[in-house]
Amino acid sequence: MPTQPSTTLESFPNPNPERDYEIAFEAPEFTCLCPMTGQPDFATIRIRYTPDQKCVELKSLKLYLWSFRDQGTFHEAVTNRIANDLISILDPRFIEVEGDFYVRGGIKTKVKVTHSKKS
Amino acid sequence: MPTQPSTTLESFPNPNPERDYEIAFEAPEFTCLCPMTGQPDFATIRIRYTPDQKCVELKSLKLYLWSFRDQGTFHEAVTNRIANDLISILDPRFIEVEGDFYVRGGIKTKVKVTHSKKS
Amino acid sequence: MPTQPSTTLESFPNPNPERDYEIAFEAPEFTCLCPMTGQPDFATIRIRYTPDQKCVELKSLKLYLWSFRDQGTFHEAVTNRIANDLISILDPRFIEVEGDFYVRGGIKTKVKVTHSKKS
Amino acid sequence: MPTQPSTTLESFPNPNPERDYEIAFEAPEFTCLCPMTGQPDFATIRIRYTPDQKCVELKSLKLYLWSFRDQGTFHEAVTNRIANDLISILDPRFIEVEGDFYVRGGIKTKVKVTHSKKS
Amino acid sequence: MPTQPSTTLESFPNPNPERDYEIAFEAPEFTCLCPMTGQPDFATIRIRYTPDQKCVELKSLKLYLWSFRDQGTFHEAVTNRIANDLISILDPRFIEVEGDFYVRGGIKTKVKVTHSKKS
Amino acid sequence: MPTQPSTTLESFPNPNPERDYEIAFEAPEFTCLCPMTGQPDFATIRIRYTPDQKCVELKSLKLYLWSFRDQGTFHEAVTNRIANDLISILDPRFIEVEGDFYVRGGIKTKVKVTHSKKS
Amino acid sequence: MPTQPSTTLESFPNPNPERDYEIAFEAPEFTCLCPMTGQPDFATIRIRYTPDQKCVELKSLKLYLWSFRDQGTFHEAVTNRIANDLISILDPRFIEVEGDFYVRGGIKTKVKVTHSKKS
Amino acid sequence: MPTQPSTTLESFPNPNPERDYEIAFEAPEFTCLCPMTGQPDFATIRIRYTPDQKCVELKSLKLYLWSFRDQGTFHEAVTNRIANDLISILDPRFIEVEGDFYVRGGIKTKVKVTHSKKS
Amino acid sequence: MPTQPSTTLESFPNPNPERDYEIAFEAPEFTCLCPMTGQPDFATIRIRYTPDQKCVELKSLKLYLWSFRDQGTFHEAVTNRIANDLISILDPRFIEVEGDFYVRGGIKTKVKVTHSKKS
Amino acid sequence: MPTQPSTTLESFPNPNPERDYEIAFEAPEFTCLCPMTGQPDFATIRIRYTPDQKCVELKSLKLYLWSFRDQGTFHEAVTNRIANDLISILDPRFIEVEGDFYVRGGIKTKVKVTHSKKS
Repeated sequence: MPTQPSTTLESFPNPNPERDYEIAFEAPEFTCLCPMTGQPDFATIRIRYTPDQKCVELKSLKLYLWSFRDQGTFHEAVTNRIANDLISILDPRFIEVEGDFYVRGGIKTKVKVTHSKKS
Repeated sequence: MPTQPSTTLESFPNPNPERDYEIAFEAPEFTCLCPMTGQPDFATIRIRYTPDQKCVELKSLKLYLWSFRDQGTFHEAVTNRIANDLISILDPRFIEVEGDFYVRGGIKTKVKVTHSKKS
Repeated sequence: MPTQPSTTLESFPNPNPERDYEIAFEAPEFTCLCPMTGQPDFATIRIRYTPDQKCVELKSLKLYLWSFRDQGTFHEAVTNRIANDLISILDPRFIEVEGDFYVRGGIKTKVKVTHSKKS
Repeated sequence: MPTQPSTTLESFPNPNPERDYEIAFEAPEFTCLCPMTGQPDFATIRIRYTPDQKCVELKSLKLYLWSFRDQGTFHEAVTNRIANDLISILDPRFIEVEGDFYVRGGIKTKVKVTHSKKS
Repeated sequence: MPTQPSTTLESFPNPNPERDYEIAFEAPEFTCLCPMTGQPDFATIRIRYTPDQKCVELKSLKLYLWSFRDQGTFHEAVTNRIANDLISILDPRFIEVEGDFYVRGGIKTKVKVTHSKKS
Repeated sequence: MPTQPSTTLESFPNPNPERDYEIAFEAPEFTCLCPMTGQPDFATIRIRYTPDQKCVELKSLKLYLWSFRDQGTFHEAVTNRIANDLISILDPRFIEVEGDFYVRGGIKTKVKVTHSKKS
Repeated sequence: MPTQPSTTLESFPNPNPERDYEIAFEAPEFTCLCPMTGQPDFATIRIRYTPDQKCVELKSLKLYLWSFRDQGTFHEAVTNRIANDLISILDPRFIEVEGDFYVRGGIKTKVKVTHSKKS
Repeated sequence: MPTQPSTTLESFPNPNPERDYEIAFEAPEFTCLCPMTGQPDFATIRIRYTPDQKCVELKSLKLYLWSFRDQGTFHEAVTNRIANDLISILDPRFIEVEGDFYVRGGIKTKVKVTHSKKS
Repeated sequence: MPTQPSTTLESFPNPNPERDYEIAFEAPEFTCLCPMTGQPDFATIRIRYTPDQKCVELKSLKLYLWSFRDQGTFHEAVTNRIANDLISILDPRFIEVEGDFYVRGGIKTKVKVTHSKKS
Repeated sequence: MPTQPSTTLESFPNPNPERDYEIAFEAPEFTCLCPMTGQPDFATIRIRYTPDQKCVELKSLKLYLWSFRDQGTFHEAVTNRIANDLISILDPRFIEVEGDFYVRGGIKTKVKVTHSKKS
């Protein structure tokens, strides 16, 4: 199991909480390690969310994604983990996190996690 | 907070208000300043709306978008701001404004605001 | 206001009126004039419709679209006009007309009109 | 009106009739004749269907499509005709046939026919 | 009918069964044999599923797909077969399997199978 | 061996023979027959030439290319044939003819013939 | 033969005549008339040149290209004509003019004229 | 070392040996085995040649490429092998063979062999 | 005429001056002003050079390109200006600078300047 | 300055040294660290070479590229370094190494090193 990254996601107050709107990030510079072999994995991480009271601060998001560089974690687990960390800090109305991983064994893998706030 | 741009959006009467139809603009020449660092930000602004009684005049829209050139404003705030200014002058049946910003810190950001008129 | 084009749209009986199906045209060779400046505008016109009892004849459609060459008309108005002329001659079950205009003032404009027959 | 092509569509039993699934073909090598001028027309034919008890045999489909080579037929009519012939031999749960024709008079034409089995 | 491949699909426990999320694979290196002529067929296999209690292990999936190399099987049958084998080992909440085959007789064929768990 | 097509290529005087310049055609609507099996073949024909005293007339080129519709001819032969016919009528300073044929047996074929006038 | 357009190309002094460099324009909004049928033709005009003492002024180029709107001229002739008019006003070290015309009779035509200054 | 494939490449007389021209094939359906691990490799094979007295027959080429299916061979070796076999049967004026292999270990590999006849 | 930007390009010693190699930058975030109208212009600047003893420092290049934001300058002049400033600080073996400007008056403009060191 | 990576590039004898041919690799999974800030950099590494007596072994190349993961190195330096290490182990007839790095400060950087064996 991956340990908690030392970098903390930071938030700022949503400037327009009276309205549903969408913020989307595409981060093609993501790498972690395979927990079985220790070999590097690479992915593009895509995040799309509707903020409630808080928005994620871009620089802390960059550092957070970099913090997986030396962690061993499976494709399914790391995508859920990023979703959970963002949900826990932002409590968004809606969020989707996609991990789009490079070819391994001739097969390309994408994992896509969606979460909606209970109203 | 950004101050009011000196340029005013102008409108003309919708030639076909009896019908719902869609007008869409794509403006790849948008730039503003980062309010933290003063450094320039660049974006493509996409607008899609269903007019009610008024349509936005294209030349005033161009000048309005140019008026952000020397203003400091965050990605989330400026996209909501453009939507609010258009809503305030057009009172459209529906509008969507998307700010599609260039890469910062290895991450590309899009903000998309949608508004529907209460019927 | 544009005057009536001299070319008449012609129709032929729908060979399969017992079924809903879709006919789509893409005409990239459309030009008219700006009513303010007299300068030429260019667009791709896309038409998609479900015929009821009549289909539009392709050659008359070509001549009809060419007939706007020397007319001054705004983007919003000409797209609604083409839709209205086709509705008036075909009385289709459904029709969508899109005018996809070239860049003016750094901004690309699309106008999309949709009409459904009252049943 | 086109006469009956001499080539017969053949079917084989659906290996998995217990489940709804989709079979799609794209055939870019279709040609027929214009019934007005006798000049050749070219199209890509796309077929998408959910089989019920029967699937169309691929080689007979190829020969069937080739059989239009010397027939005069309009865009709208031939697309409906292919749909009807497939419906008559397969009685599918759902079928869509699209004829995507080359440019004539500066205009590209697509005809798309959809049919669902009455349940 | 194809015989049972000697390679066994393996699974591991879904790390996040409390949530619906999607895992998608694209495997462009698939080949089998035509059961009529013995000639090779090639396809890209795409799999998209929502795991329930089990996820498919990537290396066993690779070996499973390779195991069709010397089997004779039709396009429709092999796509349903892969779906059935994955359903039988994973009992997923949802799964879609698409076989996207190379051109034969001038025609490209895709078969797409979808299955949802009875709730 | 294919027999002489009944349609004749026609030429008109080069309006600018004092200068080397290039005229290029792309004709995606070409079909002939396989001389072995009688089955239809399809290709895109691309022609690129530098005229000397004569240019090929576009409508006669269209009819000329259509005239192969019922002729049996191999990929290599028909591409050389088109080049030879154009050379014989135009005597161009340079010409290149490319036949870009559809997939047969899983293999796509292009034949490209180049000819320069002896000076 | 086309008559002289009323609009005059204008030039300004090359700011860097000490160096060979390239200026390229792409103008997708070009239309003229077919001298045989009077029907409209459409093209993208591409110009690429190395200035000597003079550069073409952009706005006069726009008006110059628009001035062909009501002229009847063949594809080969109009491309040579544009080249000649630019050569006559600029006397450039090198120039290439390409007329890329829309499909007529199923065939797309490009004409490309190149001229180098005698040194 | 791979053993001789049982399938023989066949040739037919070049119909136009008086001229240099190019024949190009693209075959995306190629598979062989890794000689180290026995695991399948996949590639697109591209062949481009100028015939002298002989052209390769398309159906025998298809069977020849299929004959590698059960052979163990390295990327570099198999591409040179195909070139050598074609040179030996055709003695072409020029030939280029490219093997474009799928990703292994996160790396895509292409091997390109060129041969010109000694004149 | 533009005045000297306040930001200074900085260099660092070429780590491999014993060899010719190429460094290429693409900067899509460039804006300046039209010296005639004061309206903003936008461009992508592409730089490709072979260093001699010095390489340009990336952060100073970013600030240098930003320094044109409030300057009035023509397309041809600013591209030559950037080339001259880089030549003056780097004295490179070879350099090419391309300014790829957005549409104005329906026309897209590219200016490309090339310079080789006298040997 | 980067220290020597612990992983050693390995070679095998060129199976066809009698002929010049090209081997090309594309490795999109490359990451190192910025020597100034310690922040990660990402690149695609492309290698294209003509072997003399030795070819690089693919698995050792993968491990070699991974060995830069924790090294601080500049774009220009690391591309030259990879070229030098390959030259030192392979002594190839020709080699080109390209480092294609992600956006930093709004600017994309490519470094391309070419080396030819002295004959």
